[in-house]
Amino acid sequence: MATIGDIALAAAINIITALIFLIAFAILRLQPVNDRVYFPKWYIKGLRTSPTSSGTFVRKFVNLDYRSYFKFLNWVPDALTMPQSELIDHAGLDSAVYLRIYLLGLKIFVPIFFFTWAILIPVNWTNKTLEHSKETYSQIDKLSISNIPHASPRFWAHVAMAYLVMIWTCFMLKKEYETVANMRFYFLQSEKYRPDQFTVLVKNIPPDDQESVSDTVENFFLVNHHDNYLTHQVVCNANKLAKLVKTKQKKQNWLDYYQIKYSKKPTKRPTMKTGFLGLWGAKVDAIEHHETEIEKLSNQIAEERKNVMNNPKSIMPVAFVSFKTRWGAAVCAQTQQVRNPTLWLTEWAPEPRDVYWKNLPIPHVSLTVRKVIMGVAFFFLTFFYMIPIAFVQSLANIEGIEKAVPFLKPIINIKLIKSFIQGFLPGIVLKIFLMLLPKILMMMSKFEGFLSKSRLERRCASRYYLFKFVNVFLGSIIAGAAFEQLSTFLNQPANRIPEIIGIAIPMKATFFITYIMVDGWSGTAGEVLRLKPLVIYHLKNIFLVKTERDRERAMNPGSIGFNTGEPQIQFYFLIGLVYAVVTPLLIPFILVFFGLAFVGYRHQVINVYNPKYESRAAFWPDVHGRVITALIISQVLLMGLLSTKHAAASTPVLLALPVLTIGFHIYCKGRFEPAFIRYPLQEAMNKDTLDRVREPMNLKGYLQNAYIHPVFKDEGSDDHYEDGVVIIPTKRQPRPEAWPGEEIIQEKHKP
Amino acid sequence: MATIGDIALAAAINIITALIFLIAFAILRLQPVNDRVYFPKWYIKGLRTSPTSSGTFVRKFVNLDYRSYFKFLNWVPDALTMPQSELIDHAGLDSAVYLRIYLLGLKIFVPIFFFTWAILIPVNWTNKTLEHSKETYSQIDKLSISNIPHASPRFWAHVAMAYLVMIWTCFMLKKEYETVANMRFYFLQSEKYRPDQFTVLVKNIPPDDQESVSDTVENFFLVNHHDNYLTHQVVCNANKLAKLVKTKQKKQNWLDYYQIKYSKKPTKRPTMKTGFLGLWGAKVDAIEHHETEIEKLSNQIAEERKNVMNNPKSIMPVAFVSFKTRWGAAVCAQTQQVRNPTLWLTEWAPEPRDVYWKNLPIPHVSLTVRKVIMGVAFFFLTFFYMIPIAFVQSLANIEGIEKAVPFLKPIINIKLIKSFIQGFLPGIVLKIFLMLLPKILMMMSKFEGFLSKSRLERRCASRYYLFKFVNVFLGSIIAGAAFEQLSTFLNQPANRIPEIIGIAIPMKATFFITYIMVDGWSGTAGEVLRLKPLVIYHLKNIFLVKTERDRERAMNPGSIGFNTGEPQIQFYFLIGLVYAVVTPLLIPFILVFFGLAFVGYRHQVINVYNPKYESRAAFWPDVHGRVITALIISQVLLMGLLSTKHAAASTPVLLALPVLTIGFHIYCKGRFEPAFIRYPLQEAMNKDTLDRVREPMNLKGYLQNAYIHPVFKDEGSDDHYEDGVVIIPTKRQPRPEAWPGEEIIQEKHKP
Repeated sequence: MATIGDIALAAAINIITALIFLIAFAILRLQPVNDRVYFPKWYIKGLRTSPTSSGTFVRKFVNLDYRSYFKFLNWVPDALTMPQSELIDHAGLDSAVYLRIYLLGLKIFVPIFFFTWAILIPVNWTNKTLEHSKETYSQIDKLSISNIPHASPRFWAHVAMAYLVMIWTCFMLKKEYETVANMRFYFLQSEKYRPDQFTVLVKNIPPDDQESVSDTVENFFLVNHHDNYLTHQVVCNANKLAKLVKTKQKKQNWLDYYQIKYSKKPTKRPTMKTGFLGLWGAKVDAIEHHETEIEKLSNQIAEERKNVMNNPKSIMPVAFVSFKTRWGAAVCAQTQQVRNPTLWLTEWAPEPRDVYWKNLPIPHVSLTVRKVIMGVAFFFLTFFYMIPIAFVQSLANIEGIEKAVPFLKPIINIKLIKSFIQGFLPGIVLKIFLMLLPKILMMMSKFEGFLSKSRLERRCASRYYLFKFVNVFLGSIIAGAAFEQLSTFLNQPANRIPEIIGIAIPMKATFFITYIMVDGWSGTAGEVLRLKPLVIYHLKNIFLVKTERDRERAMNPGSIGFNTGEPQIQFYFLIGLVYAVVTPLLIPFILVFFGLAFVGYRHQVINVYNPKYESRAAFWPDVHGRVITALIISQVLLMGLLSTKHAAASTPVLLALPVLTIGFHIYCKGRFEPAFIRYPLQEAMNKDTLDRVREPMNLKGYLQNAYIHPVFKDEGSDDHYEDGVVIIPTKRQPRPEAWPGEEIIQEKHKP
Repeated sequence: MATIGDIALAAAINIITALIFLIAFAILRLQPVNDRVYFPKWYIKGLRTSPTSSGTFVRKFVNLDYRSYFKFLNWVPDALTMPQSELIDHAGLDSAVYLRIYLLGLKIFVPIFFFTWAILIPVNWTNKTLEHSKETYSQIDKLSISNIPHASPRFWAHVAMAYLVMIWTCFMLKKEYETVANMRFYFLQSEKYRPDQFTVLVKNIPPDDQESVSDTVENFFLVNHHDNYLTHQVVCNANKLAKLVKTKQKKQNWLDYYQIKYSKKPTKRPTMKTGFLGLWGAKVDAIEHHETEIEKLSNQIAEERKNVMNNPKSIMPVAFVSFKTRWGAAVCAQTQQVRNPTLWLTEWAPEPRDVYWKNLPIPHVSLTVRKVIMGVAFFFLTFFYMIPIAFVQSLANIEGIEKAVPFLKPIINIKLIKSFIQGFLPGIVLKIFLMLLPKILMMMSKFEGFLSKSRLERRCASRYYLFKFVNVFLGSIIAGAAFEQLSTFLNQPANRIPEIIGIAIPMKATFFITYIMVDGWSGTAGEVLRLKPLVIYHLKNIFLVKTERDRERAMNPGSIGFNTGEPQIQFYFLIGLVYAVVTPLLIPFILVFFGLAFVGYRHQVINVYNPKYESRAAFWPDVHGRVITALIISQVLLMGLLSTKHAAASTPVLLALPVLTIGFHIYCKGRFEPAFIRYPLQEAMNKDTLDRVREPMNLKGYLQNAYIHPVFKDEGSDDHYEDGVVIIPTKRQPRPEAWPGEEIIQEKHKP
């Protein structure tokens, strides 16, 4: 049992760690040489130029202005002052709404903090149950529900608090759902012409012996949507071509590396081995080798390109069909076209840069099978992942390593290193697996055949959350592997399960407090510091960068990572809601996390991340649903806990909690979810009418080539993050009365 | 334990009962005086005229032609020879598809009968488990799975058979779903103009202070569906008016009764008491009293009619909006109109005669609350209905009756009658409740606010099935009240529940065999005999009928009663699938039921029932879903049974059964269900184009008054079953190449 002193120590350590990270960040970000690591977003937007191009040589790399170091926390107000409307303009609606999740955490838990500390802490503290019992206990337990005697009427305070938590959480959730839905509509209304507003993705076009796919599509839509149909683009299977282009790009990188090496040390031509990973094989001149390889690939690419263009077999039964009006597209996307509901499937087309081209050629019939396989695979991954890990751990022992890399034997046999390996290696194997997990989940989602990156990420997020819930949350509470839990649960009566977990909950409070501090506090500070990208950028800068464009590529910050970030936040919602009534002491730790993370990620969104796509907050129903899930879990566990406390009278009252919560969820689903999956005809008609009056446009020309596979657009470039900027003009004209101060952003926020 | 002899005796009794019913039917139907009871459908269609209008006096009532009695089973081939296409024309698609449920039963169980008898009966019979055990057993048990020793490899035969049953059932289900979906599409394509093809029901129209509802609707659809909008009809709250009209109709009936009474016995003016049920109160002249009452009501009706017409408050925020094309209606019905998904809700309008007008004025916001209330109420009704029954039973004893009707005391105290009351009254109370149950369920569905009669009946059917499953199926297997089961189940581990039920299953085979014979065989024969309608018709004919129109009203046969009939059939599917592998002896009894019921109900559909509405087989997904449910239940119970037989090796193999079945269901849901809930745009466009070319029509005039509340159409008439005929011309012109022999039906099938 941890005492308050233990917690205070852990808190001190983590606060110091976080502070060190933040101070390091404050110093590093001021160095011009790191500018592209800490402010890439502004470079990508073209609002900042390289500081290395002016000043003395030293000043190019190190900031010598001592005054700037005093204001090392300046980035906090900078991150907070940008108004939301500017933020949406600057980073997109997705990012702005993503930040609102942290804000939602604050909105939910600040009042809960006050309620619970004002009421439950005194109610818990003023008992002497633990003092009279013979068990050891700490002051933390005295503050928790454990200190209430069996069958005490004081439990009614906890029941009332559970209601208060539910009502407040639901109230905030509803307000937030409403706000986000309105933001989405407003965003849609204020957007300029975008190809996806007019385009529908048509899948499973039935084959026709007489006609090409293109003609079939044209005929079909000319007949069945004759007033609205405009044009269409068929989809080619360019996966092989894309692969070749990617390989060529990799070779090009190596060529660059060797050329730079050679230019620095012109006395020695760089050589390489042709075998696996350059470890063995014939020694050749590296530059020449790569040059011939690249030429070979270029020829292959040209051939494959011709093949894809001309071979009718490379045309997939999938097409992007564009309409004259948004109304027409909305009608087509939201209705069934033919008798057979598996043919001519229509759905809204994703943004061009959101399309996951690799999955478009997957035959539609195989999708169900893929889904089932991945469902089963995920089940086994969640409940039995410990088995392969244990297997690898058993392999990765001293003997195994000695066998694999015999030349390391003398080093390994040093006693200190030996014990280190034996002690830490198993843990490291697990850590590596957990680091790879998001990648594994992403591969699984890709295998399932989703057609847009946004949906891939959303699917990953929900699976990652489930995995964390089973293996981190349940796994920490009931020690034991997940598959053991599974068999326990199957063999227990249904109403015993919440009891088993419920009893263990108060005892694990200190564990989760420590978890929050390590993962939440230090983790967030580490995220702001961006140590890994910093190192990688400088490495690339030294070894690969030749031109300004290479440097831009090297600094590519990626997107915020919804698939891992969102489940992490949700985990805090879960812990917070579960412990709100049981151990209110935990809440302030959650609050610190939400506050810190909000500031930190707001800074990152403004200065660093560059979203891959804009899904217009399509992920919010998932976010909402997971908070609701956490709320219901917390209620069921509280019920289980109280039923062991001989507070049977409260059970029927508690039973109403999950029922009411589910009712609330159904209400929200009906009321707000359609805003995220359908496009109302009135909205479409309004926007059509306004646009026709305000700025008519040659839509056909605009849409004809909007959905072209990226390999056909600019060969040899992998600047995918630029594609979006190129294809989709995002210069939105906000209505000044609603989002004022639009014009000054570029001046004001150049850091 | 029943022996084979017991079963044979019960079978003999029930066969004789059924035969008596059928012979009585054969004789009664030949009497001209009963003609309107046994052939009302032909009268309603106007293809048969009253036989009482010709021949000698006696021949008007009794058939003296002795030859016709020899052919007393003639109706069977008559019922079977009408081809399906004619049947659809004659009785509608709903009825034709309803009959296919019985046919599906035959298609599923005939091969299962052969499989199981060929394989399982020998496998079961050739053991000596029961002979060696000390328990008493019968020959029936020797034929069942009970005769297999523990952990015998012979269980693999049962497992294989379970797979065979699943595969065959799913195969037939799929074929049938496909057929019915195609029949539905074909029916839709071959229908002439019908108002519901062009009309959308719009609910929850937002109020506008400046405009009337009618103007709001017109403006909205002119803007958002400007190419397609044609006209609309607002809905008035005429519930009070309808009530008044109904009361007047009742009074009119009494007036007729008294007038006929007076005309038969002109010496004595009939009198009546004005109090409750005519039991007490002042004595008045009945004819005069009713005449003044009717006049009063007529004035009230005229006033209320004016009120409804002119008062804007009586206009509900609901409208029937008609479109120029089916395409336009399909688009509007299947899309979201405005941002707020709870406003301007659109759905396909039901047929005019299918509309349940009384529920149109229910405010949309209250629907969810109503649904929840009814869900809870149904739960309690299912699990706790025995409590009020027991309470009533405790009241309805000798003392209670003596108190309520003291003048019966001498009769009650006769010993024979006393013991009769004590023995049978509790049973009768339960029987009355079960007879009222469909009415109670219908009231519950009406309270839920469904807008069409077809949906009301479908909801009732699914609830009735659930009730039967819990209280008849589970209740018979595990003796004990449902709420006791509930607490047992909650306190058992999840995997114990199928075991508990599974063990009991083989023991209850004889009970269900008897049930099938009584309810299925004799019940079906009784249905064909139509004893109750026969008596009621003759009573009405004597006491009420003045004109030919009154007689038509008296013979009104009603519809087939989907809400009670379909759950009954489903119950046989359930028993059949559960016992197919466990006690194959039961299957032939099921087969006899399906065969008999198919013939019987086909005859009834052709000659008797007059459907209230035509939902175009919209109920089929429910039927399919319930057979799937039965299949899954049978598989889970088999798993439970085998796990107690120490056949643990088979469990994983059996586990795949429900998983595969659910997978099949999901496939069918995706593949076929859309045919029953959506209208593909291609179909709509095809039909629009064809109609435009073949027979253009003034749609506006046709649709303008299609959806008018029945009270405004013809006051004082309650011939609701005629409305459909009047409003919707059902003269369909079938394509001769597909459904031949159409023209001869009217001649051939006049019986």
